[in-house]
Amino acid sequence: MANDDQLRCVKVALPGREYDIIIGTGNLTSAASHVGTVIRSRRLLIACDENVEEPHGSILRSSLAAEGLDAELMVLPAGEQTKHVTFLQAIWDRLAGGRYGRDSALVALGGGVIGDLAGFGAASYLRGIDLIQVPTSLLAMVDSSVGGKTGINHAAGKNLLGAFWQPKLVLIDCDVLKTLPREEYVSALAEIIKYGIIYDAVFFDWVEKNIVNLADGSPPELQHAIARCCEIKADVVRQDEREGGLREILNFGHTVGHAIENVAGYGAIKHGEAVALGMVAESHLALTMQPGWDKARHERLVALIARSGLPTMLADGVSKDAILQSSKSDKKARQGAVRYVLPREFGIVETMSVSDEAVIPSLKSIGAV
Amino acid sequence: MANDDQLRCVKVALPGREYDIIIGTGNLTSAASHVGTVIRSRRLLIACDENVEEPHGSILRSSLAAEGLDAELMVLPAGEQTKHVTFLQAIWDRLAGGRYGRDSALVALGGGVIGDLAGFGAASYLRGIDLIQVPTSLLAMVDSSVGGKTGINHAAGKNLLGAFWQPKLVLIDCDVLKTLPREEYVSALAEIIKYGIIYDAVFFDWVEKNIVNLADGSPPELQHAIARCCEIKADVVRQDEREGGLREILNFGHTVGHAIENVAGYGAIKHGEAVALGMVAESHLALTMQPGWDKARHERLVALIARSGLPTMLADGVSKDAILQSSKSDKKARQGAVRYVLPREFGIVETMSVSDEAVIPSLKSIGAV
Repeated sequence: MANDDQLRCVKVALPGREYDIIIGTGNLTSAASHVGTVIRSRRLLIACDENVEEPHGSILRSSLAAEGLDAELMVLPAGEQTKHVTFLQAIWDRLAGGRYGRDSALVALGGGVIGDLAGFGAASYLRGIDLIQVPTSLLAMVDSSVGGKTGINHAAGKNLLGAFWQPKLVLIDCDVLKTLPREEYVSALAEIIKYGIIYDAVFFDWVEKNIVNLADGSPPELQHAIARCCEIKADVVRQDEREGGLREILNFGHTVGHAIENVAGYGAIKHGEAVALGMVAESHLALTMQPGWDKARHERLVALIARSGLPTMLADGVSKDAILQSSKSDKKARQGAVRYVLPREFGIVETMSVSDEAVIPSLKSIGAV
Repeated sequence: MANDDQLRCVKVALPGREYDIIIGTGNLTSAASHVGTVIRSRRLLIACDENVEEPHGSILRSSLAAEGLDAELMVLPAGEQTKHVTFLQAIWDRLAGGRYGRDSALVALGGGVIGDLAGFGAASYLRGIDLIQVPTSLLAMVDSSVGGKTGINHAAGKNLLGAFWQPKLVLIDCDVLKTLPREEYVSALAEIIKYGIIYDAVFFDWVEKNIVNLADGSPPELQHAIARCCEIKADVVRQDEREGGLREILNFGHTVGHAIENVAGYGAIKHGEAVALGMVAESHLALTMQPGWDKARHERLVALIARSGLPTMLADGVSKDAILQSSKSDKKARQGAVRYVLPREFGIVETMSVSDEAVIPSLKSIGAV
C-alpha cells in the first residue's frame, strides 16, 4: 500500500483545467483512491504493452476492480513501431466496439510509446475522452507523461500526427522502476540533467551531488528528482501549452539528439543516449554562441553526463553531414532555419538559429566525421 | 468580384481565439484578400471533392495563386464514405509528404464531409495546423462549417472519431449554391428552420414569411438566413464549445433524425430530410411533455416544413422499434437515457430524458409502424 507520508503532488494549472501529478510508492495498488476522484463514470480502458502487462497491468486492473471500477486491459505490442496508425485504429476499434461513452476514461499504462499513442486515442475518440497517464518508465515519468503532447509517427517523421490533450491525472509509482531495464533507466537521466540546465541551477547542483544515488535508483533521491522535473515541465507547459515560445527550451539537446536518432535509425540508440550526445554538442556550440557559457561549465555538464553512465562521444563513423541534413527535416525546422536551445548559464537557455558552418565543429566534438 | 456592400461578417469569439465568418457573393474569386489576413505562411493545401473541383476548386486555387499564395489542390472522392480513416491518412500523407510546416494552412472546400474530414486532418497534423472552412453546400454553410466539430465515421457509428478544432476563417460564397443540386439545397432548409425553433422566434417568423423566396434561392433572403444561422450557432458554441450543456439544443430534430438516417442506411435519405422528420416527431413529443407547446404551434412548424419541400411523413414500413433501438446507440446516448430537445415555445427549447413508451406515439405520428 502507499505510504502517504511519501506522496508528492505536483499541481499543473492550465487555463480552465488543473490536474495533479501524484508521485509515490505503491500507487498502482492504491490507484482507485486517486483515479476515483477524477473519473466521471466507472468505466475505464487500460492500454498497456506486453512488457508491462505482467505484473503492472494486472496489479492496476485488480486494484481498480477491487474498488468497483469496470477496468479492462488492452495489450499492445511493445516498441516504437506501435506508435502507428494501425494501433491507433486498434484503440478506436476497442473503444467504439466496446461502446465506451463520453464519460469513460482511457488509462495509458506504460512508457512514452503507450502514453503518446493512447493519449492520441483519448484525444480523438468521441472528440476527446478523459485520459489518465500511469507512466512506467523513468523517461515517461519525467518527460512524456506531463505536458499534453500525444501522437503517432508517420513514414515521413516521428510524432507528425497527434494532438495536444492534457491528462486528468498523472499517477507515478516509483516501485515500477525496479523492473525497468538498467539501460532504460540510465537513458532517462539525460532528461533529468536537462531540466537543471534549462531551468534550475540549484537542481543541477543537486543532481551533480546526488548522481551516484540517483543512478542507483535510491528511492528518496529518485522521488525528489521526478517531482522536481515534473514541476519544471508543468511550469513551462503552463506558460506555453501549445509550443509558441517558452516550451521550446525543453528541446535542449534534442535538435542534435533527434537528428542522431534519425541517422542511427530509431531503436539503434536510446532516446536518452541521443539526447546526452545532443546536449554535449549543443553545449559545445554554446561556447561560441553564448558569451556567458564557458569551458568550465561545459566540462561540468560533460562530466555529469559521463558519471550518469551516458555516452559523450558518438559511435565510430557517424556522418556530420547526415546529422545536419536530418536536423533540417525535423518537424520543428520545417520551413526556416534550424533552431538550437543554447545555455547561457546553468538554469538559463536561449533559442537561436545557427548556420550549418557554425554547427560542424560541435558535431566533430562528439566524434562525427 | 465581391460586392463589398453585400459582405456580412459574423464574429465568433471563443476564449483566447476569435474568427470571422464572411458571407457574400464572389468570395471565391476574392478569396486571397480574406485568407491573406489570417494565414501565417504562403503555403496552403486545398482539400475538395471531385464534385467541387470544377469550377470551384480551380477558381479558388487560381485566385489564391494570383495573389502569390502557394495553394495546391487535393481532390478526394465525393460522398459520406470519404469520412473514413483511409482518407484521413491520405490527407496526412499529402501534408507530411509535401513537408507542409506548422505555419501552413489546410483549406476545406466542400460540404460537410470534406469540412469534417479535412478539419480533423488539420487538427491532427503536427498536433494542429490552421484550418480555413470554405463550405460549398447550404447545409455546411449554416451548420457544419461553424462550431469546430471535426471527425470521421467508424464502423460502429457516425462521427465517433475526431476533434474539436476551430477554423481561423469561414469563407462563404453564396454564388456556389447556384450549382448545388436542388434536393441538397432543400434539405438544408430543415436546419435553417431549426435555428428559429431553438433560439429565435423572430427568425422563425421571418423564415415563415420568406420561405418561398428562400426556397427559390433568392440572394438577399439567402444571405440573411445564412448570416442569422451562423450568428445563432456561433452564439451557442461560444457559450459551450465542448458540448457540456447549451450546445445540446442544436440537436433538436436530431435524436429521431439520426436514428432515421441509421435505420434507412446512410445515403438513402438526406440528412435534412431526416432532421425534418425528426423535428416533426419531436415537436409532437413536446405536445405531451411541454405544457407550453400546443397544437397550433406544432401545426405551424409542420406546415413550414412541408412548404419548404421537406417530408413530414416517413416512407412506408419504417419500424418504430428500429428507430428507438438506433436512438439508443447514438454516441450522445451512450450510457444513459436518450435525451430529447423539446420546444417550450418558439425560440425556447429544453432537454429532457424520455422513456420509450412516451416516444412511440410521436414516431407513429410520422408514419412509423
